[in-house]
Amino acid sequence: MGRSTRGGLRGVRMVGAAMSKFGKMDRSMREEAAQTGLAALHRSGLDPAVVEEILVANAFGLVDHQGHLGPLIATSLGLEGAATATVESACASGGVALQLAYTSVASGHTDATLVVGVEKVSQVDSKTATTYFTYGSDVPFEAGCGATFPALYATLATAYLHKYGATEEQLAHVAVKNHKNALANPNAHLHKAISVEQVLKSPYVAWPLKFYDCCPFSDGAAAVLLVSEALAKAWGVGGVEVLGSGRGGSAAQLSTRASLVEIPGTRQAAAQAFSQAGLRPKDVDFAEVHDCFTIAEVLAIEDLGLVKKGKGAEAAVDGLTSLSGDLPVNPSGGLKAKGHPVGATGVGQAVEVFEQLDGRAGARQVKGAEVGLSHNIGATGGSCAVHVFRRV
Amino acid sequence: MGRSTRGGLRGVRMVGAAMSKFGKMDRSMREEAAQTGLAALHRSGLDPAVVEEILVANAFGLVDHQGHLGPLIATSLGLEGAATATVESACASGGVALQLAYTSVASGHTDATLVVGVEKVSQVDSKTATTYFTYGSDVPFEAGCGATFPALYATLATAYLHKYGATEEQLAHVAVKNHKNALANPNAHLHKAISVEQVLKSPYVAWPLKFYDCCPFSDGAAAVLLVSEALAKAWGVGGVEVLGSGRGGSAAQLSTRASLVEIPGTRQAAAQAFSQAGLRPKDVDFAEVHDCFTIAEVLAIEDLGLVKKGKGAEAAVDGLTSLSGDLPVNPSGGLKAKGHPVGATGVGQAVEVFEQLDGRAGARQVKGAEVGLSHNIGATGGSCAVHVFRRV
Repeated sequence: MGRSTRGGLRGVRMVGAAMSKFGKMDRSMREEAAQTGLAALHRSGLDPAVVEEILVANAFGLVDHQGHLGPLIATSLGLEGAATATVESACASGGVALQLAYTSVASGHTDATLVVGVEKVSQVDSKTATTYFTYGSDVPFEAGCGATFPALYATLATAYLHKYGATEEQLAHVAVKNHKNALANPNAHLHKAISVEQVLKSPYVAWPLKFYDCCPFSDGAAAVLLVSEALAKAWGVGGVEVLGSGRGGSAAQLSTRASLVEIPGTRQAAAQAFSQAGLRPKDVDFAEVHDCFTIAEVLAIEDLGLVKKGKGAEAAVDGLTSLSGDLPVNPSGGLKAKGHPVGATGVGQAVEVFEQLDGRAGARQVKGAEVGLSHNIGATGGSCAVHVFRRV
Repeated sequence: MGRSTRGGLRGVRMVGAAMSKFGKMDRSMREEAAQTGLAALHRSGLDPAVVEEILVANAFGLVDHQGHLGPLIATSLGLEGAATATVESACASGGVALQLAYTSVASGHTDATLVVGVEKVSQVDSKTATTYFTYGSDVPFEAGCGATFPALYATLATAYLHKYGATEEQLAHVAVKNHKNALANPNAHLHKAISVEQVLKSPYVAWPLKFYDCCPFSDGAAAVLLVSEALAKAWGVGGVEVLGSGRGGSAAQLSTRASLVEIPGTRQAAAQAFSQAGLRPKDVDFAEVHDCFTIAEVLAIEDLGLVKKGKGAEAAVDGLTSLSGDLPVNPSGGLKAKGHPVGATGVGQAVEVFEQLDGRAGARQVKGAEVGLSHNIGATGGSCAVHVFRRV
């Protein structure tokens, strides 16, 4: 297994993972984040004192009138000496924080870094929440012109349907699949089976995207503990290997991109992660991808190289990406149904990979899963993180 | 030069640096950050295309209704493929981003990472700005009880004056020194010589801290380019070696700390940075330290090991820390007079170190400077970053 890196990176393992129930959070961000971080530490079986760094993924903390979350969470965990930072990269905050944490551990800067993603938006009404979400766009040129995220993704969907002759019905299958998967996930925000007909009859938000093509606003927290392979072995714990950790970027504004049917940042982050892992897309057994809208899942699996360009919309229809298919996508329910608490989303994807590769995903277990992938993008792909994991 | 690291870290150099004039920013954050990033790239002499990652240090972007600054700045620089993230750690955002960037380059994850710190608060009135700043404290237990930052630092100052018999007049000397240094810094926010008498006669903000003990609210941007030693050599550029890069933490609330006359996070970050650099405090020729209030500089130089505990308040009086003294502290003018644009502050410290070690600091040049240190803390030290640099 050749690794393509330029430094002397060490092996990194994810040895603990936990998430809150996504949906509405009654606790404060600090409390929920600390509780979830503690659960991840407990799950690892390691002494919490091994943690040297805590990276917090959070996008809208100021909405809750609290910044500098790191020391609050560290102190709540009894780890006040830990170095901390908050990482924001819009909806990719969690995946990007995971990538920075990977580099901390792989480089030897730390032996153990805890990543905690947390978000709470339920204290504001949905119109205000929509406004906060738009701060992830290129505001003067997108939100400021009325282009909220449903509109921006509708632009991508329109281009895709036009270019590949795909249909709204095909997109609907993505939503139906992810809602079905979420029924088996006790921590999912939405537990509601839906039919293709229900999706198609739901009101348009921004043509061709309808209500059921869109993910909900969610609160939630998720945490994973990354440690050096040496530390994991010293403690006699297995966990999951982080084989590849990549990031990429795209032009901020959709209007300046060369193509509206691909996300350059995804392709770049995937190339980096696969190269580092010494694996190819065909080696992936399942993937948690960024499906803030149904079209996003379609673009993601294409740009990740999991299906051919233009074939993504058929994948949910023909069952390829269903839980029992050859390439299950979003077994957790995805952003679409598991929920999308912005800062926690990318970390929550890693939690699902941990559960799956640890064989504890219950009724949504992907059979024989050895290699899992997570994919998290910010806004329309201005930022992106892709991780490839393998069962030890 | 022995380095104490656990991985195979590569040599890292700072090869370009630039800052805006701190004070009031007329441009948008995006424009000022991009302009400053471009100036740092230009200064390096490298092709901007070498940049693989941009870390943005910013604390209050949402105040300006814009998050996800990375892709905006990257796109403005023509580097839309760069991986980006925003790092927030209250007033230590810049130093913490610098540390994460160091790890990216040292580990081989990137060959070149640009760090851009930016902040703009002048669009709101000073009462509102004060409120935003309090979000860096432990809000329910500090700001929520009326303890804004002047009050929190006044608590530290009170404890210090009591324990060591230090005086308000001694603290005033810190302000006088830093205002004097800033006169020679064209980019400083405040260009105003002050006397000890003026400081002592200025109105109390929170006893024993008076108006002139406090730094101003500033807008501003600062940028530095970190590259691998190999890349610097390939391009035939010198720059400044980043010898040590450390971070630390302290309990979030002052009320829970064992001591009010030291900042544990500073001690920890300094120990890490010095150990990695294979240097001792006595090897430092000058330091840029976090002097949001005069007492903060006193605590910083003690906790960094530059002077003995309890001797920090005398240092500005007896001239040790003046520009012509044995250990110049804040030759730039510090936060106190150069200004404190939160996200840009820690990056701006590195810019000053670059100017000094490159011998281009003009009338504020520290003579014979070979080793420089930067020290940046968030809130009352909940987070901290310390860097040690050496002239190539």
